[in-house]
Parts: sequence; structure tokens; C-alpha cells
Amino acid sequence: TINELEIADVVIISVPVDVSMQLVPQVLDKVNENALVIDVGSTKLPICNLVQHHPKRQQFLATHPIAGTEFSGPQAAIKNLYKGKTNILCEIEKTADKQQELALELFKNLGMRIRYMNPKSHDKHIAYVSHLSHISSFMLGKTVLDKEKHESDIFDMAGSGFESTVRLAKSSPAMWTPIFEQNKTNIIESLNEYISNLSHFKTLLEKEQYDQVFNEMLSTNRIKEILK
Amino acid sequence: TINELEIADVVIISVPVDVSMQLVPQVLDKVNENALVIDVGSTKLPICNLVQHHPKRQQFLATHPIAGTEFSGPQAAIKNLYKGKTNILCEIEKTADKQQELALELFKNLGMRIRYMNPKSHDKHIAYVSHLSHISSFMLGKTVLDKEKHESDIFDMAGSGFESTVRLAKSSPAMWTPIFEQNKTNIIESLNEYISNLSHFKTLLEKEQYDQVFNEMLSTNRIKEILK
Repeated sequence: TINELEIADVVIISVPVDVSMQLVPQVLDKVNENALVIDVGSTKLPICNLVQHHPKRQQFLATHPIAGTEFSGPQAAIKNLYKGKTNILCEIEKTADKQQELALELFKNLGMRIRYMNPKSHDKHIAYVSHLSHISSFMLGKTVLDKEKHESDIFDMAGSGFESTVRLAKSSPAMWTPIFEQNKTNIIESLNEYISNLSHFKTLLEKEQYDQVFNEMLSTNRIKEILK
Repeated sequence: TINELEIADVVIISVPVDVSMQLVPQVLDKVNENALVIDVGSTKLPICNLVQHHPKRQQFLATHPIAGTEFSGPQAAIKNLYKGKTNILCEIEKTADKQQELALELFKNLGMRIRYMNPKSHDKHIAYVSHLSHISSFMLGKTVLDKEKHESDIFDMAGSGFESTVRLAKSSPAMWTPIFEQNKTNIIESLNEYISNLSHFKTLLEKEQYDQVFNEMLSTNRIKEILK
């Protein structure tokens, strides 16, 4: 129970980001003066703003470990999930030295790579490289489900291409709705750019400008050098 | 060389779909009267229409094995690639019994599941479950590359989500441009629906209708039951 928190050395809060807005201040209220409280949610500005004047702000560390799958709950646990993965730490300077050291030791033992970022930059970048991918995947799934009434056709024809682009559409709506709510402004910006790129590509097809269709793909192939 | 084709029992034509429009009739012209000629491209209506009156039409079989990766060329070969994969056969009734049997034996030995479909249906379905995924992925890659000038940010923050949605953006433009050209009408239809779904989702965010955002995702979660 929440009352047993006072004997904890480290508390890791891993819940949907709307729930962590309730839970992080409550947990900070309860823990002893040596404890470290870590949150691991996918948005960082709202939680950092929320706790900025909390009397135990120095015992809190805002993190975002970039790891996980489309599945959630205890049965989705993966051994060594964090090994070699990046952990983004926000406002590390607002965490006391003692708690910083404890956190870094913990992440080192898990084999994580550490990056530091301010919460505003984090939320902007992550809208592009994570949140947009989820919307792109959910809407792709929706488009195909709406069209393909005979589900066996999807199964038979999907191949590995559709499967990997639509994988994130299996993700939990309870986890993702509050992320989209908290990062709304950045996500709308990224969606506008994505929709505009798709519309432009469609126009090239309509106008039969296949040299430009080719070049659009060729320049995006650069992703190969970045994500091996 | 093309002149040695006359001693071949089976010829499998696996080239970009614009090249196969040149090559399939030439190969049919050259092969002996017992040979089987198979094409494996991602569009089926143009090639089936092209050869419909060829004197050796009965020796041709239009197929689409649903297998492969984003990589191309001999170095991208994978052992047992076809095992358990679906092979879509079009207009099987236009292939002579002898060549049908030879083809089915070959696919059986490779461990493939067979489905029959007319070329028009094939091209329509595949626009949704394959071609649209590729455009979605290319444009996602473009959107993120345009935004993220510092490439290390992408690398560090991408995680497995972005990586899987953007994987197809590593595909060959030389292979995909002629596919998009040949299946233009179906692809534009699917793109219109995809863009409309994305715009609707954006509107829900702008209007802060988070119950509906949740429901959009929940109903698309059904993809879990279809693609395990």
C-alpha cells in the first residue's frame, strides 16, 4: 500500500501519464528523505512542471527509457529489456547528488546508455520519432480494416511489410490517449507535416511525375545509414 | 544469355515490374514448348493483360509470393524464405495443366500456402496491405528526417517503434516506382482514405475529444486478432 512507501529506497512509477500526474506528488509526499522517485512516462514537460515546487523535488528524477513493445502489463515483461537501450534524463540538475548517483548506478547496472535533454526538447523530438509512428500505425490499421471486410484476405496478403508498419496499432489506448493529450501541440505539428508529405506524394502520382516519386524515396533511403 | 532459354524447364522472372513488362514476352518467345515461365511481381493486372494473347500464354503463370524484406539483390537472399508463406496465383485457368502441375509441385516443395485470386482483386487488395504501407513508411521517414537535423537524436530516441514503422523506407526506389505507376489508381484511393483517417484523428486532438481518440485506437486494436 501507499503507506509502506516510507520504507522504500527507490520507487519507479510506471503508469499511464495521466495517472502519474496524480501519483508522483502523492508518492513524493510519502517517501523518506533518502528515497529516489523515478517516473518513466513518454511525456516529460507536464510532470516536470507539476513537481517543480514540490518540497521533495530533489528526490525526483524524470526519465524516459526508450524500450518496450506494443504489449503492456506484467505478462509483457522481457528479460534484459533495458540492456543497450537509451534512457533520457530530464532536469538532472534538479535532482540531489545522492539521488543522481543512485539512479545512474541503477541504470548502469541495467546496461543503459544515458542521454540528457530538457523536457521541452524531449517532448518535441519524441512526438516525431515515437508518437507520430503510433498514430501513423493506428490509422494505417484502421484504413485497411475498414476496407478489407474479409479478414482472411488481410491475413493471407499482409506479409511482413504491413505487419511491421501496423504493429504499433496493437498498443494500449489507455496508455496512449493521455500521451497524445499531454503532447497535443507537438503531435499536431508532426501530423500536419506528415499529412502534407503524404498529400504531396499523392499529387506526384496523380500528375504521373514518377522521376520525383523515385527521388522522394531515394532521399528517404538515407534512413538506412541512421537506423541500421 | 537469353538464347540459352530454350533449354530451360522453368524460368522465374524476378525483376522490377516495368522490366518484366519487357522481359516476360521476350522470354515466352524463346522458351521451348514444355517450359514454365513464372513472374513474381507485386502488380498482376498489367502483366496478365499484356500476355493475354501471347501464343505461349498457357506456359505462363502470374504469381505473387508474399515474402521478402526491405533489401534487394543477391546479398539479400534468405534461406527458406518461402516456407509457410502465401503465394497468390492469378488466372490459373489460363495456364496449361502440365505447367500448372509443375508450378504447384515447385511451390509445395518450397512449403508455400497457395491462394487463387483474379489480377484485378489482387491489385486492389495489395494496394491496401502492401503498397500503402510502403508509402506510409517512406513519408514517415521523410517527415522525421526533415525535422531532425541532428541525426544522433533520431538514433538515440528512435526505439523499436519508429524503427519498425520506418523499416520499409529502406526499400529500393527502382523496384517501387514502377509498382506505384502500375497500381496508381488503387494506391491513390488507399492514400485518400489514409489521409482522411489521419486528418480526422488530428481534428479529434484539436477538439480535445479524447474519448473518441481512445475509441479510434480501441477499434483498431482488432488488428491483434488478425495478425498475431
